[in-house]
Amino acid sequence: MDASREPRKAREERRDPEPAYGSHDLAFVPGPLGPDGLRRIDAYWRAANYLSVGQIYLMANPLLREPLRPEHVKPRLLGHWGTTPGLNFIYVHLNRVIRQRDLDMIAVWGPGHGAPGLVANAYLEGTYSEIYPDVARDAEGMGRLFRQFSFPGGIPSHASPELPGSIHEGGELGYSLAHAFGAALDNPGLTVACVIGDGEAETGPLAASWHASKFLHPGADGTVLPILHLNGWKIANPTILARMPETELRSLLVGYGYAPTFVDGNEPARMHQAMAAALDAALDAIAEIRRHAGRGDGGRPHWPMIVLRSPKGWTGPKTVEGNPVEGTWRSHQVPVAATRENPAHLAILQAWMRSYRPEDLFAEDGSLLPALAELPPQGPRRLSANPHANAHTSAPLRLPDLRDFAVSVQGRGRTRAEATRALGTYLRDVLTLNAKARNFRIMGPDETASNRLDAVFEVTGRAWQEAIFPSDDHLARDGRVMEVLSEHLCEGWLEGYVLTGRHGLFATYEAFAHVVDSMVNQHAKWLKSSRDLPWRRPVPSLNILLSSHVWRQDHNGFSHQDPGFIDFVANKRGDTARIYLPPDANCLLCVTDHCLHTYDRINVVVAGKQPALQWLSLDEAVTHCAAGIDIWDWASNEGEAEPDVVMACAGDVPTQEMLAAVDWLRRHVPELRVRVVNVVDLMTLPAPETHPHGLDDPTFDSLFTRGRPVVFAYHGYPWLIHRLTYKRTNHGNFHVHGFIEEGTTTTPFDMCVLNRLDRYHLAQAALRAVPGLGARAEHAEQALRDALAAHREHVRRTGEDLPEVRDWAWPERRAPEDHDRRIEGDIMQCGPTEADASGRAEAVDGWTMVS
Amino acid sequence: MDASREPRKAREERRDPEPAYGSHDLAFVPGPLGPDGLRRIDAYWRAANYLSVGQIYLMANPLLREPLRPEHVKPRLLGHWGTTPGLNFIYVHLNRVIRQRDLDMIAVWGPGHGAPGLVANAYLEGTYSEIYPDVARDAEGMGRLFRQFSFPGGIPSHASPELPGSIHEGGELGYSLAHAFGAALDNPGLTVACVIGDGEAETGPLAASWHASKFLHPGADGTVLPILHLNGWKIANPTILARMPETELRSLLVGYGYAPTFVDGNEPARMHQAMAAALDAALDAIAEIRRHAGRGDGGRPHWPMIVLRSPKGWTGPKTVEGNPVEGTWRSHQVPVAATRENPAHLAILQAWMRSYRPEDLFAEDGSLLPALAELPPQGPRRLSANPHANAHTSAPLRLPDLRDFAVSVQGRGRTRAEATRALGTYLRDVLTLNAKARNFRIMGPDETASNRLDAVFEVTGRAWQEAIFPSDDHLARDGRVMEVLSEHLCEGWLEGYVLTGRHGLFATYEAFAHVVDSMVNQHAKWLKSSRDLPWRRPVPSLNILLSSHVWRQDHNGFSHQDPGFIDFVANKRGDTARIYLPPDANCLLCVTDHCLHTYDRINVVVAGKQPALQWLSLDEAVTHCAAGIDIWDWASNEGEAEPDVVMACAGDVPTQEMLAAVDWLRRHVPELRVRVVNVVDLMTLPAPETHPHGLDDPTFDSLFTRGRPVVFAYHGYPWLIHRLTYKRTNHGNFHVHGFIEEGTTTTPFDMCVLNRLDRYHLAQAALRAVPGLGARAEHAEQALRDALAAHREHVRRTGEDLPEVRDWAWPERRAPEDHDRRIEGDIMQCGPTEADASGRAEAVDGWTMVS
Repeated sequence: MDASREPRKAREERRDPEPAYGSHDLAFVPGPLGPDGLRRIDAYWRAANYLSVGQIYLMANPLLREPLRPEHVKPRLLGHWGTTPGLNFIYVHLNRVIRQRDLDMIAVWGPGHGAPGLVANAYLEGTYSEIYPDVARDAEGMGRLFRQFSFPGGIPSHASPELPGSIHEGGELGYSLAHAFGAALDNPGLTVACVIGDGEAETGPLAASWHASKFLHPGADGTVLPILHLNGWKIANPTILARMPETELRSLLVGYGYAPTFVDGNEPARMHQAMAAALDAALDAIAEIRRHAGRGDGGRPHWPMIVLRSPKGWTGPKTVEGNPVEGTWRSHQVPVAATRENPAHLAILQAWMRSYRPEDLFAEDGSLLPALAELPPQGPRRLSANPHANAHTSAPLRLPDLRDFAVSVQGRGRTRAEATRALGTYLRDVLTLNAKARNFRIMGPDETASNRLDAVFEVTGRAWQEAIFPSDDHLARDGRVMEVLSEHLCEGWLEGYVLTGRHGLFATYEAFAHVVDSMVNQHAKWLKSSRDLPWRRPVPSLNILLSSHVWRQDHNGFSHQDPGFIDFVANKRGDTARIYLPPDANCLLCVTDHCLHTYDRINVVVAGKQPALQWLSLDEAVTHCAAGIDIWDWASNEGEAEPDVVMACAGDVPTQEMLAAVDWLRRHVPELRVRVVNVVDLMTLPAPETHPHGLDDPTFDSLFTRGRPVVFAYHGYPWLIHRLTYKRTNHGNFHVHGFIEEGTTTTPFDMCVLNRLDRYHLAQAALRAVPGLGARAEHAEQALRDALAAHREHVRRTGEDLPEVRDWAWPERRAPEDHDRRIEGDIMQCGPTEADASGRAEAVDGWTMVS
Repeated sequence: MDASREPRKAREERRDPEPAYGSHDLAFVPGPLGPDGLRRIDAYWRAANYLSVGQIYLMANPLLREPLRPEHVKPRLLGHWGTTPGLNFIYVHLNRVIRQRDLDMIAVWGPGHGAPGLVANAYLEGTYSEIYPDVARDAEGMGRLFRQFSFPGGIPSHASPELPGSIHEGGELGYSLAHAFGAALDNPGLTVACVIGDGEAETGPLAASWHASKFLHPGADGTVLPILHLNGWKIANPTILARMPETELRSLLVGYGYAPTFVDGNEPARMHQAMAAALDAALDAIAEIRRHAGRGDGGRPHWPMIVLRSPKGWTGPKTVEGNPVEGTWRSHQVPVAATRENPAHLAILQAWMRSYRPEDLFAEDGSLLPALAELPPQGPRRLSANPHANAHTSAPLRLPDLRDFAVSVQGRGRTRAEATRALGTYLRDVLTLNAKARNFRIMGPDETASNRLDAVFEVTGRAWQEAIFPSDDHLARDGRVMEVLSEHLCEGWLEGYVLTGRHGLFATYEAFAHVVDSMVNQHAKWLKSSRDLPWRRPVPSLNILLSSHVWRQDHNGFSHQDPGFIDFVANKRGDTARIYLPPDANCLLCVTDHCLHTYDRINVVVAGKQPALQWLSLDEAVTHCAAGIDIWDWASNEGEAEPDVVMACAGDVPTQEMLAAVDWLRRHVPELRVRVVNVVDLMTLPAPETHPHGLDDPTFDSLFTRGRPVVFAYHGYPWLIHRLTYKRTNHGNFHVHGFIEEGTTTTPFDMCVLNRLDRYHLAQAALRAVPGLGARAEHAEQALRDALAAHREHVRRTGEDLPEVRDWAWPERRAPEDHDRRIEGDIMQCGPTEADASGRAEAVDGWTMVS
């Protein structure tokens, strides 16, 4: 009889002198671990590996108390074994140092497809059963643990929000290190272990993220401990970092600024000792760095890191049908397949699982033996229960009074201001109010000043740990603005920062927001899933400011012109995505203030940085933004009857052009009755069943009428407006003007003309849409054609817009009596900014405003 | 009088013993360049710098023959000076080595915003005037050259398609090195100089691209010579690579696998000699590597590279208003602004331009002095005229006969096949037919086998220059499949490959195509602009195969489920974007074959890899794909009258579910008259003015009726169908079922059920949409609810789909008489595959099929 198959009872009767968890075949080798420590750590690792294999394969007989039969095995074998034993190995060693040093630590697992191991560890620590009592720490619970994995109605195959302790799903590879650094910022007591797979290490975002240590303050921020896990293969290929010469790999990591220690091998006892020694050395080095860091004026330390080289599918089947499996790409997913159909394969699976000797690890009731259960850290020190990994926040975000930043509008449509410059003063005070709490950051690719948010530099600097020269502009060791020319790193930092409960803003060029489409996608998925988990705390919203937008790329051209990020976000679920197009500075202030109050959202705000006409006082802006959409009575001349045409606009440049068109029409065709509708919150347009902000049909119809023509000037691709409104009564009468990819480097107005979003084309569209205007309209149309021809001639000759275009302002007019507000919004009536830990439902109610 | 202001005439009269182009203040320092060589190279550099400044600033008085007045200066000063003198410096030195060694070289300029310098060089070489005769090599032409830059109706501010010799716009940073390696593949005689800005070097895609040398065959591929240009600053920040300790930078580059030479300084004479020496050494090293490369079995060489450290805004104003400008971030764009308004600034500009001594460089008529004009290489050796940079192809792509790969359909809807596996056999033969020409490659992130295209490994391997072990799977030094876990690098390789006239396919997981949204965006912009230039040759299409799609992510979950890349591409212009959703293997073959014939497109093909029912024989598939959309009479029972309901489908899984729904309806509600419409080419749906493939309204109405309900099963987000069809007569009756982000890890059918794209929900939608079905429909609806409940219970208990679902097949039925084909398509009637160099218009006509 195979010794490994000997039942527990028989073994106990033999009164083995070793502890039950003993690793009989584990010869002692010297190192930081004593004989019992080595045996225990190995046993714990075996337990995690056993539970991992069980999750991938079994739906019954979890403790192998009876011989494995086909019906114990899941019909569909899903999951990834290859990386899992390595993750389990790292996990148990992190447990050791957390206990030994009482570390406040979270871990980011880049290879999130190794979730069977991470779930196993959360289960071994007890956290899993605390959160999901059905999955108890007994045989029945273990059965549920196995069955639920990658099973209909069960849990996902990756380190998803369902996994306690996770802030990083790891399904899409590349973002672990950026997330880890984001989590470490402003958490000086925290150590973030970041496991980077060698597959992931090939991605661009990961390759760029190594440099993040050049922005991490060694005194005021926490620590990131990168653990590069080389197991040699991806799905089918060797990995670059595992296969390149080790001298080059070392040179690369030293070049990235780290001091690497290599742990390399496949023999468990030696590997345990080597890993323990490497972790001890790394944590000693970190402690030493932090001891000397102080205010960190000394610049960037050479942070330690560990390179763990271990076999892919370690401890799994050595061969299957003559093919090597352990240590090759063949162990990536399910190393031995068809175990239900093929008795030989079933036998391999059984021998494999028995090789961990579950009878030595789990008690009769299926619980972990007490001697092993006391190995991991306890309570909130557990990696699966650290509050940082559940959006823990030590201090609420304090926001200043908007009124202090109001742009004074002296004459509606006759004052010019730079919207983002006004926002900069607001953000400056957000930084000041939260300077002590250190819970607010601004990320962006070297564009904070270019986007005219530079007032923030009155109170903080740009984070920088390399040398600082006199000619540098506002560099500071502990700056709260993070600028690096990698949208991926900016976005990843912010994601890691908000997922650990802090607040921030990512300001970037509109066109290049597409660089992070896929990251934002994954964050949206995270929010969707975590929202369904009552134990997950709300996550401060991901706020993205798109400036230097499509309509004003003066120094650049077509490559910098793309408004499609809005379309991308509009595809995300209504409970997550918000898109705001404030028409002027005061509206931008209101909208940003609102966004900073919210949780669990992806807020996209689009705002220009150039001097532009201002339309609303702050009080008006508050009302307008709260509604999200409304009629601008002061610009309309509809009178009491239904208007002849609705002129709608969304976005700062479209609003300006639309009002210029309305002004032109009111001067040239005064009998035309025009209604102006301005849209701030794009998600008021779709039906309410599509998005919680969607207007009900009667309200929508009261704005856009049930049958009058609607000329709509929109910031982005015009068809988005059609797709948002196609269910509306009057949709057939919508004429949308937007960006149609006629981009170039030209003047601001000519850019509009090329895309037919200018005042003249908009006025023309109105004249053509309204029937029965007769000769007057023909005359007016001729005037429009003449104006366009004059513009074209002038701009190509002089390089400038015509003065009457450039200097146009809304003329003083006696405004009509204001109608009653059509739209009652409550966007601004948001709850307190303190995250309420007492329960998600309550908290979410507290935060949710409009929906 | 300032010597530099001394007019040319006076200088000539002084009979200066030095040649006219002489650099009086350039003291000789020893090095590879002799005294005259040094003077000439410096003079040429000054000429390029002069022309660069002129483009940014002037609209008149190009040769400064009269004192500079405000009206000579452009009213809007746009462009980027900072990087430009460094690019000019590199350019003139590349010219030297091209001449000296008769190199076949192209250059990729990462900092494409330095276009003033690149345009200047193309002008100095004469190419510019050959292509744009208006911009002649005289004073008038120089005036036009200056005026057109970043001016309405002129040329863009970046290295756009308008620039001869460019394959890389450089507006969005990060892709230069990937493009360079893509261009070098299979061009053993070609050297690609790749200038990488230190800003760009911070991006993820660039950071990952360094590893591309691990895939480049030193014998069969060309050479990439990276030139990392460190000028220290981005817009406002220092750059990481310039500011990190030089020992670490060297370590990083060595770690990436290169042998770097540093050229560092600001004194022109010394810098010229150092750069010439560095280039000589690098090219000697390259020649040595290539001499020993042979078939390259020796693995990867340590390729040389150059690190050029030069001041930002080199030779520009030292200070402006007391602020240092040269060598700081302040010279990034326009170092001295408001030159029209501020006389002191105007004087700075004039002194700056005069410092290049144009009178020593240009003859009386404004042409470059002959002694300088003979410096650059001639004809096609010019960087601005190398045919590789204009999609030059030495051999046409040969495509096999589709019939050899047809999947035999024994019983319509009763044969199962894996579509991508069939495609693999076709691609295998494409590789074989073009093995000698070496003009076809497959790129993908480690997923070729996972996507079941592994038949290609019968004839080629995966490119790999590191060590190869016995356990590796089809690695080969000269493999034609490029796999790296960086979608950015894969996409960049393919872009570089097709932009230099070769063909390829990028196969990737559907969800992660979003990773390269922004790259595809830029490529689409490139195609749009280049299409308008008669001298630009057509570019083989960018073919993207999305497999492992949203509906079958068995080993993964929600993170791997996203069909939004289609939406992203659908936002691109109709003359560029194509989206195909072949319903089965034979259709996938037809569509791919078509895509490989095309030029100037972005073709997106979505196809599953799992065993699935097959619907059409190859001949039927050819007809169906040529039409792009059609009624499937054999599945319909509409008879002669108009059908009660149209059941439309697009995508392989939706088609299968829709036909199962139709089968169910025909069995349970036989009196319901059903029409089945299948859509392969998504762009048949919008109106023809939106997309050239769009059906005209009568044809659309003949398929979808003018008033009957349409139930539409669609692969992606349902609202895309609405946005494509909102102008159609019958749009109000469309009920679209698609992916609504109810993703998870579950069974294939349950995934459909969660998103209501399954047969039961589709049948239910038909019953609800057709009025007056009465009791029979109620009864049928109850049966559907029962079926769904049974499914739910079964799948959650067993983890498998119900056998009747899993094993469903289309029953044998007597098919109705085929109607006449409604849609006459010509997708397959494509022209020859040889690029016709005789003229773009002709070539484009030859290639264009459907549009």
